[in-house]
Amino acid sequence: MSDTLDLFADPVELTVALVDVRSVSGEEAEIADLVERSLKAHAPHLEITRSGNAVLARTRLGRERRVVLAGHLDTVPINRNFPSRREGDVLHGCGTVDMKGGDAVMLAIAALSAEARHDLTFVFYDCEEIEAERNGLTRIEREAVEWLTGDLAIVCEPSNGTVEAGCQGTMRVEVRTRGKRAHTARAWMGENAIHGMGEALRRLEAYVPRQPEIDGCRYHEGLQAVKISGGVAGNVVPDEAVLTVNHRFAPDRSVEQAEQHLREVFEGFEVVVTDFSGGALPGLQAPAARELVEAAGGVPVAKLGWTDVARFAALGMPAVNFGPGDPTLAHTQEEHVQVQQITGCFDVLKRFLLA
Amino acid sequence: MSDTLDLFADPVELTVALVDVRSVSGEEAEIADLVERSLKAHAPHLEITRSGNAVLARTRLGRERRVVLAGHLDTVPINRNFPSRREGDVLHGCGTVDMKGGDAVMLAIAALSAEARHDLTFVFYDCEEIEAERNGLTRIEREAVEWLTGDLAIVCEPSNGTVEAGCQGTMRVEVRTRGKRAHTARAWMGENAIHGMGEALRRLEAYVPRQPEIDGCRYHEGLQAVKISGGVAGNVVPDEAVLTVNHRFAPDRSVEQAEQHLREVFEGFEVVVTDFSGGALPGLQAPAARELVEAAGGVPVAKLGWTDVARFAALGMPAVNFGPGDPTLAHTQEEHVQVQQITGCFDVLKRFLLA
Repeated sequence: MSDTLDLFADPVELTVALVDVRSVSGEEAEIADLVERSLKAHAPHLEITRSGNAVLARTRLGRERRVVLAGHLDTVPINRNFPSRREGDVLHGCGTVDMKGGDAVMLAIAALSAEARHDLTFVFYDCEEIEAERNGLTRIEREAVEWLTGDLAIVCEPSNGTVEAGCQGTMRVEVRTRGKRAHTARAWMGENAIHGMGEALRRLEAYVPRQPEIDGCRYHEGLQAVKISGGVAGNVVPDEAVLTVNHRFAPDRSVEQAEQHLREVFEGFEVVVTDFSGGALPGLQAPAARELVEAAGGVPVAKLGWTDVARFAALGMPAVNFGPGDPTLAHTQEEHVQVQQITGCFDVLKRFLLA
Repeated sequence: MSDTLDLFADPVELTVALVDVRSVSGEEAEIADLVERSLKAHAPHLEITRSGNAVLARTRLGRERRVVLAGHLDTVPINRNFPSRREGDVLHGCGTVDMKGGDAVMLAIAALSAEARHDLTFVFYDCEEIEAERNGLTRIEREAVEWLTGDLAIVCEPSNGTVEAGCQGTMRVEVRTRGKRAHTARAWMGENAIHGMGEALRRLEAYVPRQPEIDGCRYHEGLQAVKISGGVAGNVVPDEAVLTVNHRFAPDRSVEQAEQHLREVFEGFEVVVTDFSGGALPGLQAPAARELVEAAGGVPVAKLGWTDVARFAALGMPAVNFGPGDPTLAHTQEEHVQVQQITGCFDVLKRFLLA
């Protein structure tokens, strides 16, 4: 491995170089050191610092607006897909999609950012693929939030090169039924809590999810049972059953409104919220966001899953996903990216930020 | 503890003596020895043998019919209810109900059986309270089935002094739904197997169990969910759910008919039978059974739970439960019996067998 990366090289070559440095979550020291050295060598106009295994860099151009670009350096565990392997226009390997292509584009933009149209902050962070408490953004937000704030955040996670705006929220609730135990030979003396769950499943089956349009983005809500359990013994009428339901809600609803909605859906049942994360409005009316969408030349789409975009949205900024690669290939053994998506994303960000 | 029991004593006193010998399942040697010695001392007219910790005794009077009386000697584990404690007409302690009152009545009848109206076989057996393979009747049936056969079997388990005829069968099935996994943020790409279980629960809720009358006994069937499970992860549309259902069926249906019925109820679902035990017809039309019902002076009732009665029924004999004590107190810490029930059962069996 070379001492520094050539940040002026083709971003596809940069992607290869990054993929070929192992960086499973928690083991990002080597790649973070490489990124830090490379930025210091090739982008001396940047202010550069470290936060653990995260590398933070920014311009100080005095522009009216600041755009934050964020990419995690870690990958899920390697699964017989290391190092990278190129076949024609396809680059295979762990991290090719999630998300060293995005990191490479960020590094290439950083190298060219001495005269950028907006001030830029680059956040290369650690531990995105594991529990939220260890996520580098959690630590940076706590210790140095000024490195995360600006007028637009672009999380360069794979989005097939499309601007994915905002994200949906998620909430899990436990719906509980209670009954009365009895021997199944004398079932009429009891009350079956599992039978009582039939009505809750009926409501789930009949549920028609909203598909609201916000800032031109179509969201698609969901209400899905993800777990059910109940039962005491093979000859006992059960006195309790628990159904866990995951609700995905469009960002025009707050966490409180989503909870209220679930309490209405399951009226008559015990409902306990077990966890939630608010969504993020697309915020595409903000000037910098409009410029990005224009540079991408396409129609933005709604982000349906929950991503770190929501962390930036919670800081009061419009935030989008934009990066190379098909997100459905992330975390798979056959992870691979079309190299044109990498250069395509690079071109869009150049038009938006450097033109 | 005395060397032998006085089998001519009040059966309530005999019950006390038996309760005060610990005999948790698997530890019946002491009580079996005591029963064997006592029978040899006080009922020399009987042929007596052992099968492990079971004691077998029978008359050889050449009567037209033979009645088999069966009682297990073991108890569930002691639970701060040993030794016995008498308060007025109530005898407290582990085994007072299940079933040393019945054993005491059997011993008292055995002592008086030298001139009985029917030939009699007494089966005092071990390990009824644990897995069927260890049940003494399983061993005796395999090794010496002639000690179990006759024209009527009376299992002296607690029945509140009422003749409980036949018993219901039991069958457990697993009802399975399958779907297709997907991320809950894109739920429409999957198919939720838990939601698919709604229809099965709907059928259970709507199910009206039969209550057939057989030989004057009213049975009461049941169809109860006893377990439900499903779920992959908190953000995954689940691709499988399993519902375990316990069916209790009246003895006018065979195991095969019960299975056919369940396949009809759950038509369209995957159904797998996991275990079953056939029921037992009351057989109260048989002459010896009619005599017993007459001696008991009452109306027989259907046995709803599954008991060892079914083992005798499977041997082709009418079989009933008849014994002192409230069966709902069995296996409880506060197990206790009204002593009048013990003497009442003794009187009925005397009228039936010795008059």
